[in-house]
Amino acid sequence: MSHSLRSFLLPQAITVLGASRRRGTLGGELFHNLINCGFPGPIYPVNPNAEAVHGVAAYPDLLAVPGPVELAVVAVPAAGVVAAAEQCERKRVRALLVISAGFAEAGYPERQRALVEVCRRSGMRLIGPNCLGIVNTDPDSPLNATFAPRTPPPGNIGFLSQSGALGLAIIEYAQRLELGLSSFVSVGNKADVSSNDLLEYWEADAATSVILLYLESFGNPRKFARLAPRVARRKPIVAVKSGRSGAGARATASHTGALLAASDAVVEALFRQAGVIRTDTLEELFDVAMVLANQPLARGRRVGILSNAGGPGILCADACEAAGLSVPLLPQATQRRLREILGPNAGVANPVDMIASASPENYRRVIGALGESGACDALVAIFVPPLVTGGEEVAQAIGEGAAGLPAELPAVAVFMSSQGMPAELAGRGLAANSPPGARAGAAAARPRLRVPAFTFPEAAARALARVADYAEWREQPAEEPVRPCGIARERAAAILAAAEARAAEWLTADDLRELLACYGLTLPWQAVARTGDDAAQLAAQQEGALALKGLAPGATHKSDLGLVKLGLAGAGAVRQAAGEMAERAHQGGLELTGFLVQAMAEPGVEMMGGFVQDPIFGPVLVCGLGGKAVELLRDISLRLAPIGARDAAAMVRALRTFPLLTGFRGAPPVDLAALEDALVRLGALAADFPAIVEMDCNPIVVHTRGASIVDARARLRKSAGGEGRPAAAERYDVPVASG
Amino acid sequence: MSHSLRSFLLPQAITVLGASRRRGTLGGELFHNLINCGFPGPIYPVNPNAEAVHGVAAYPDLLAVPGPVELAVVAVPAAGVVAAAEQCERKRVRALLVISAGFAEAGYPERQRALVEVCRRSGMRLIGPNCLGIVNTDPDSPLNATFAPRTPPPGNIGFLSQSGALGLAIIEYAQRLELGLSSFVSVGNKADVSSNDLLEYWEADAATSVILLYLESFGNPRKFARLAPRVARRKPIVAVKSGRSGAGARATASHTGALLAASDAVVEALFRQAGVIRTDTLEELFDVAMVLANQPLARGRRVGILSNAGGPGILCADACEAAGLSVPLLPQATQRRLREILGPNAGVANPVDMIASASPENYRRVIGALGESGACDALVAIFVPPLVTGGEEVAQAIGEGAAGLPAELPAVAVFMSSQGMPAELAGRGLAANSPPGARAGAAAARPRLRVPAFTFPEAAARALARVADYAEWREQPAEEPVRPCGIARERAAAILAAAEARAAEWLTADDLRELLACYGLTLPWQAVARTGDDAAQLAAQQEGALALKGLAPGATHKSDLGLVKLGLAGAGAVRQAAGEMAERAHQGGLELTGFLVQAMAEPGVEMMGGFVQDPIFGPVLVCGLGGKAVELLRDISLRLAPIGARDAAAMVRALRTFPLLTGFRGAPPVDLAALEDALVRLGALAADFPAIVEMDCNPIVVHTRGASIVDARARLRKSAGGEGRPAAAERYDVPVASG
Repeated sequence: MSHSLRSFLLPQAITVLGASRRRGTLGGELFHNLINCGFPGPIYPVNPNAEAVHGVAAYPDLLAVPGPVELAVVAVPAAGVVAAAEQCERKRVRALLVISAGFAEAGYPERQRALVEVCRRSGMRLIGPNCLGIVNTDPDSPLNATFAPRTPPPGNIGFLSQSGALGLAIIEYAQRLELGLSSFVSVGNKADVSSNDLLEYWEADAATSVILLYLESFGNPRKFARLAPRVARRKPIVAVKSGRSGAGARATASHTGALLAASDAVVEALFRQAGVIRTDTLEELFDVAMVLANQPLARGRRVGILSNAGGPGILCADACEAAGLSVPLLPQATQRRLREILGPNAGVANPVDMIASASPENYRRVIGALGESGACDALVAIFVPPLVTGGEEVAQAIGEGAAGLPAELPAVAVFMSSQGMPAELAGRGLAANSPPGARAGAAAARPRLRVPAFTFPEAAARALARVADYAEWREQPAEEPVRPCGIARERAAAILAAAEARAAEWLTADDLRELLACYGLTLPWQAVARTGDDAAQLAAQQEGALALKGLAPGATHKSDLGLVKLGLAGAGAVRQAAGEMAERAHQGGLELTGFLVQAMAEPGVEMMGGFVQDPIFGPVLVCGLGGKAVELLRDISLRLAPIGARDAAAMVRALRTFPLLTGFRGAPPVDLAALEDALVRLGALAADFPAIVEMDCNPIVVHTRGASIVDARARLRKSAGGEGRPAAAERYDVPVASG
Repeated sequence: MSHSLRSFLLPQAITVLGASRRRGTLGGELFHNLINCGFPGPIYPVNPNAEAVHGVAAYPDLLAVPGPVELAVVAVPAAGVVAAAEQCERKRVRALLVISAGFAEAGYPERQRALVEVCRRSGMRLIGPNCLGIVNTDPDSPLNATFAPRTPPPGNIGFLSQSGALGLAIIEYAQRLELGLSSFVSVGNKADVSSNDLLEYWEADAATSVILLYLESFGNPRKFARLAPRVARRKPIVAVKSGRSGAGARATASHTGALLAASDAVVEALFRQAGVIRTDTLEELFDVAMVLANQPLARGRRVGILSNAGGPGILCADACEAAGLSVPLLPQATQRRLREILGPNAGVANPVDMIASASPENYRRVIGALGESGACDALVAIFVPPLVTGGEEVAQAIGEGAAGLPAELPAVAVFMSSQGMPAELAGRGLAANSPPGARAGAAAARPRLRVPAFTFPEAAARALARVADYAEWREQPAEEPVRPCGIARERAAAILAAAEARAAEWLTADDLRELLACYGLTLPWQAVARTGDDAAQLAAQQEGALALKGLAPGATHKSDLGLVKLGLAGAGAVRQAAGEMAERAHQGGLELTGFLVQAMAEPGVEMMGGFVQDPIFGPVLVCGLGGKAVELLRDISLRLAPIGARDAAAMVRALRTFPLLTGFRGAPPVDLAALEDALVRLGALAADFPAIVEMDCNPIVVHTRGASIVDARARLRKSAGGEGRPAAAERYDVPVASG
C-alpha cells in the first residue's frame, strides 16, 4: 500500500487539471511551483481555455496528452472534479491529488463518495480533496505540487498536515527555522490516503528519519495503534492532535466531517502506548523536531547546563526539572576541572555559570569537560550576548564542542538575543560535523547534523524532555499483548449469548461471577438470595463475616444508596440487614431483585479496574484507586486493550497513588503482580467481547497475597446496535496519570 | 522611600566613576550610553588616568567636580568601590549605582557590608552592586546608565531584573517586540534598593502602568506580601520567579547569596494572594506584558476566535480551554449575521472559520459582529497568509476592527508566518487608535494602544488566560485579614510560656486542648489517663462510644502505629484496648506517656488544617483533605497567615476534593462555614505565636453542623532559636491546588 504512494511523491510524469496562466489563482500558483521546482519529468497542463500555461503548451483535455501520466493534480472547481477523475481513470493515471475544496468539509459528502468510487474501481489512489498539496525535496526528483508561496528546505523530516491552511504556515516556519523536510503532505479530507498510509510510506523511505503529524481526527485508530509503535521504534513520530477541548472538537467535527470526537484521554493513552511524542503546541512540535532531526537520542535524563549568565541557567534548570529531567550536581573531579578552566568566580556545580567574561574557548572546553564527566546525558549551552564576546565565535565554539561529544550525547544551544543567532548562522542552528550533502538514513544511527538553537532556555528544556521520554520508551523491548493462560473463551461467549438472547442490559450477579471466572478473575464466595430469609439461610451455612448487597441492576455507588452492609455475623444479622435494606430501597424508589450474600474479602488496598468499548478506539482499559475522593482527583490510568504484562505494570505505576500499593506508611505491601494480572485478564475480556460495552470492577481488593474483585457490574450492547455505548470521551475525558 | 529612587531615575546631574575612553569596557560602554541617551543635565566622567572621556573633560577625582552630583554610577574595580562610595559620601551624592561585580555573589560579603555601611551612615541609596544598570525612557529626561548595547523603546512598562546578564537579553527582546518600557532597573545583589522599593516607586510613577519582575530571591517577603496586593490593584504585576527546582535553587543560592531557598509552593501562594501574575517562562512574561501594556482588561473568560484557517482556530480553542478560558457557542443571531458576512462555507459557531478566501473587510466586519454579540470577553484574530490576501491589509483591518470594539474588550492577533507581521508592522503589533505620543497613565483607564501580534495561536490563548485570572482577582474587593472574635490571646501566651519554660518540644494533650479553645477551636470531650485502669474509670463516667489514643509525644500517623482505637463502648472495652495498645507500643519501641480518652466525633468529612512558620515567609497555613491517599495526591491549599474569610473560602474551594464537602454522591453537605472559620482561627494562632513552629490538626471532622478537631499536635521552637524549624519548602513543596 505504501508503495503506491511513490506515484504521488516520485512520479514519472504529471498532469495538472485546471492549470492556469493567472498567478494568484490556485491553478496558477500550483503550476508555477511545479514548473519551477526542478521536477525532471514532463508536466502537462490541461486547460480547455488556454493554448499555453506558463509557456507550456496546454491540452484541451487529459486524453489529448501524448505520453503516460502517473500523477494528476486536480485544481478544477469542485463540481468538475468527479468528471476530471473519470478522465484520469481512462488515462490510467495512478495517483490523484485533489486540491479543490467543496466536498465533505463543505456539506457535499455525496460528491466525495462519487470521487472515491471512481478511485476504488480504477485502483487510483487519492490524496485530498481539499488540501494544499504535496512536496518532495528529493534532490534527484524534486516536486512541489502545492500552491504555497514558499518551499521548505530539504532535510530528513516527513511532515503530514490535516489542515491545508496550517500547511501554509508549517512550510513558512520550516523555512524560517531551516527545518529540512524530506516530504510534506497535506492530506485534506483523507478520503483515501490516510495518516496510516503515510506512516507506512515514511517507515520505508530512506530519506525520512523523523515524522511530524498535525492531526485533527483519526480515520482508523486501531490500525494507527498497531502501526505507530512499529514505526516509532525506528523513527520518532511527533504529533499535535487538535480538537482536545469542547470547542475544539466542535470545530474539528465541522472542519473534518468526522462523525465522532475522539476522547482526548484515550488519544493520550494511544500516543503513549505507541511511543508517539505528543506536544501541547505547534511551537513545541517544531522545537522537538529541531532536536530529533539534528541530534542523537539521549541515553538518560541528566542535563548539563552551561551559560555565560546566571539567571538563564537557573531558568533552564527549573524548566528541566519541571519537565522531568534532572540537573545533577557534577562530580567533584569535573567541578575541579571546570574551576581550572573558569577561575574562582564561576559556578561549577551545574548549572555551570561561566559568568559574562566567558570566551568562545571557555564554551568549547566546558562542553568537552561536561561530555567527559559521565554525569550528563544531554547538554544545553546558553549564550547571552555580553559586552565583548562575539556571538559568531561562540556559535562556532559550541558547534565545535558539540562535534567532539560522545556520539550519543545530544547538545542544544540557546541564544538569548533579539538577533537570535548571529546573522550568518541565523535559523540554521550551529553546524557540527554535518556530512556535506548527506541525507540522513534510517534513524538507527542518528548523526549529529547541527546544534539546534533556541531563543528561550525553557523551550530547549521542554524539547529535550520530550525526546528523553521517547528515548526511554524506545529503550524498552517491544511487547506484544500476551494471552493470559486458562481462559475459557467459549464458555464466556455462551454466557453472553444467553444474556443477549434474554435482551438483558446488565449481567446478573451469577453470570458475572461465572464470566469473570472464565477469565481467571474471581470474586469471594457469594450466592444470590431472593428474599431476606433466603439470605439468612445462606448465611447460616457460612463461617466468618459476611457482606450483604441489595441487587438493583445497574445501580452505581451502591454504598451511597445504603445497599451494602459489611461485616455481618450470623443469620440473624443478615436477616435484619436485608429487611432494613429493602425498606430503604423502597423509600428511595428502587426495586431490589434480590440479595447477594458474600464472604468478606481479606483486607487490602481497594483499587478499581474496568473498561469501555470506545466507538472510535475500541476497548479502553482503566485502572485507579477505589474510593470517592479519587474520583474527584482523577488519578486513573488508561490503555487500549488488550495489554501485556509490561503495560499493566506501567499502568499501575503511572498512578500518583501507586505508593499505597507498595507499603505506604508502615502498611504491608500488597500483591502487585495479582493486580497486574487482573488488568491483563480484564483487557483480554474487553478485546474478546465488544458486546460488553462497559465493565466496572470496583473495588478490586489487593491483598498481601492475591487480589479479589469484591464488586463488579457489566453492561451489554443493546440489541439495536451501538446505541447507548458510552464513548470513552464521556467517561474518561480527564487528565490521566502520566507514564 | 520610593521618593528617593527619583535620584536614580530622574537625577539632575550624574557622575561616572571609572568612566573610560575605551569602547568594549564596562566604563566605556556605560559612558557612551549616558552621553548618547539625551540626558539633559551634566555628566561628569571621573578618571584619574584620562584628560577627557568621549570628548568630555574628565576629573581626577569626584571632589574635583565643580557642580552638585545627584547620581553616581560606579564602574571601578570591586576593590576600589568602597573608597569611591566614601568620595560620594563627601560629595553628598544622593544615589549610588554600583555596576561593579565582586561582592557577596563572588564570595566577598564583607566588602558588600562595608559598602552598605557607607550608604547607611550617609543616607545615600544604593542600587547594586553587581548589576547592569538602569534605564529611564522619560522623553524629558531620558537616562541610559547601562552597558547594554541596545536601548529599550519607550512605553508604559517598568521592568526589574535581578539578573544583570538576563537584563541584557530582556532589553534585546523588548526592542525586538517593541515592548515599550518606562524604566528598567537591574537590581543586582539588592544590597539596599529592593524589589519592594521599586514596586513603591512604580506604584506612584505616572509613566508606568504595568510592572514586570524577574526575581531569584526575596529580600523581605513579608513586606512584599503587604505591598504587592496594594500595587496590583492599580497596576498589574507580572513575575517570573526562578529557582523553583532543586538545581535551580542551588544555583540561585550561589548566584544571589541568598541563605535560604524559598519554598516554591509558598511563593506560588504568595503571588496568588497578592494578585501577582506568575508566568512559567520568560517568553510567557513577554507575551502577557504585550497584552497588558496594550489592551484593556477583559471582563470575563469567554473568547471569540476568528481565523482564515480551520486548524489554527482549533489549536487556539484547545489552548483557551486548557488554560481556563471558554470558547462559547455564539448566539444564533450572531451566527446568522456571520453567515451573511461569510457565506455558506464558513464555520460560524466559534471558532469562526472564515476560510482561506477571507478578505480584510471580512476580518473587520467579523470583529465588529463578535464585539457586538455580547458573547465574547476577548477576541483572537488569526491570520495565515493565503494565496491572495495581503498581510498588510489584514493587519490594518484587524487594527481598525479592534479600534471599534467596546472599551473593555481586548483583542489580540496571531500572524502565522515566517515573516511574522507584514514588514511595516513587524514587531509593533497592529496600531489601533493609539493616542499619538501619549504615555499611558495609571491603569485605572487602560487605553487600547495597539493589537499585540503573536506567532502561534497557543501563546495568545495562554497570555489572555493569565490576564483573565488577574482581572478576576482585581474584581474582588480587597480584604484585610479579620481578627476572629473571642480570642483569649493572653491566656494562650501563658500556656505557651509555661511549656517553653519546661523546655517542652511538643505541647501536651491538655495544653493543646486549652490552647485551641483560647482561639475558639474545640476538640471533642477528652481526658488524659495515666494508665489503662484510669482510662477505664474515665470511660465509665461517659455515655456513647469513645476513642482511645496512646500518647507518644510527636508521633505522627498514630493510627498506622496502632495507637488509635475507635468506637469503644464501656469501661471494659477501654481497659482491654489500652492493654493491647501498651503491649503493641512496647513491641514497637515506643514509650506511651498515657492515654487520651475522647468522645467519638459525629460523622462528617475528614479534612486537615495546620501551619508551619516558614523561615522566609513566616506563618504558612495549609488545608486539605484528611487521609492517606490525599497525601500522595498533594491536594492541598496554602496561604500566608493571617487570612480573612474570603481567603479561607478560596482555600477550601481550590481543593480538587472540594465537592466532597458540598454533598458528594448523595452524602449530606457539610458545614463549610465552620471549616472556614477554623482556618481563619488557625491562621490567627499561627500569626500570633511564631513560637509554635508547626501545628497539624488532622483530622478536622466537618459535620453537617460544626466542625471538630479530632486530633492535633503542635511543636514548639527549641529554646536555642530557629534550629529545627521546618522550612515550608520541606513540608509543602508540592504542586498546590490552583485558585
